[in-house]
Amino acid sequence: MATPQENLLDWLRDAHAMEQQAESMLKAQSKRLEHYPKLKARIDQHIQETFGQQKLIDECLSRLGGSSSSIKDMTGKLMAFGQAVGGSLMSDEVIKGAMAGYVFENVEIASYTALVAAAKAAGDSETEAACEKILPQEIAMAEWLLEHLPELTEAFLVRSDDPNLEAKK
Amino acid sequence: MATPQENLLDWLRDAHAMEQQAESMLKAQSKRLEHYPKLKARIDQHIQETFGQQKLIDECLSRLGGSSSSIKDMTGKLMAFGQAVGGSLMSDEVIKGAMAGYVFENVEIASYTALVAAAKAAGDSETEAACEKILPQEIAMAEWLLEHLPELTEAFLVRSDDPNLEAKK
Repeated sequence: MATPQENLLDWLRDAHAMEQQAESMLKAQSKRLEHYPKLKARIDQHIQETFGQQKLIDECLSRLGGSSSSIKDMTGKLMAFGQAVGGSLMSDEVIKGAMAGYVFENVEIASYTALVAAAKAAGDSETEAACEKILPQEIAMAEWLLEHLPELTEAFLVRSDDPNLEAKK
Repeated sequence: MATPQENLLDWLRDAHAMEQQAESMLKAQSKRLEHYPKLKARIDQHIQETFGQQKLIDECLSRLGGSSSSIKDMTGKLMAFGQAVGGSLMSDEVIKGAMAGYVFENVEIASYTALVAAAKAAGDSETEAACEKILPQEIAMAEWLLEHLPELTEAFLVRSDDPNLEAKK
């Protein structure tokens, strides 16, 4: 049993951990990419957005008096997944990387959608406003990745088929 | 280095493993849910759709002469993630379960989007048609879950706040 405020605080802690993980995943991906400059540039833009999102979530946590130190089980598993994805060296890693980025954006979209509803239920209009500010940035990044996935796939397949080119990064 | 056909076959094997995992995740979720009948009904509908999707992918694999036995690393990690999510017993598991379901649908959306492009590049119009048949079902399920996440969150928070009610399943 928990009050809406307690659940909200729990989920904000999850969001904090999630944005830390987003930062390390995005940085790792950007650093590795060489032959796909459009993807790299969009990831770099989202790293900047992520810093702003971290600030917004931290402000909500401070305001509600919650520390951001306790990382819950679910987020821990998401993080392990993210690390597995970010650190992998598969032959088609640019494709799997873009897919994993898209999937991670959707983790964030689901989280902030639930957080907006939870903040509303808890009567916390400041947290509601913060999450509503973040949500469109995550949606835009997810949409960009999915829209560009076909052309990225084609580019990868052409490079992969050419013995003189490196395809994976 | 690999031809478009080899990459396509690899990704179809991933899709096969993914749909097996989808089936076990969805069944586990449906079995646990008690107090959220609308969510349970939508999941049950998608289990039926998943059977049809498995058949389509298996037909593509047979046609291309590929076995479905080798599960690749990335999919193995996704499966571990799915099992962690599906088997978890968190206090807010209906919410995390719906979020995880939404995230998994987006894994599938990204996979079939890349597969459509790969089938096109490989000149395999039958695989292209099969993946284009599956994709809208995954999109519809993802959209349903995200649209219903706010009301599910509200229902959970009300139940969670009431000492006489069970909220999590």
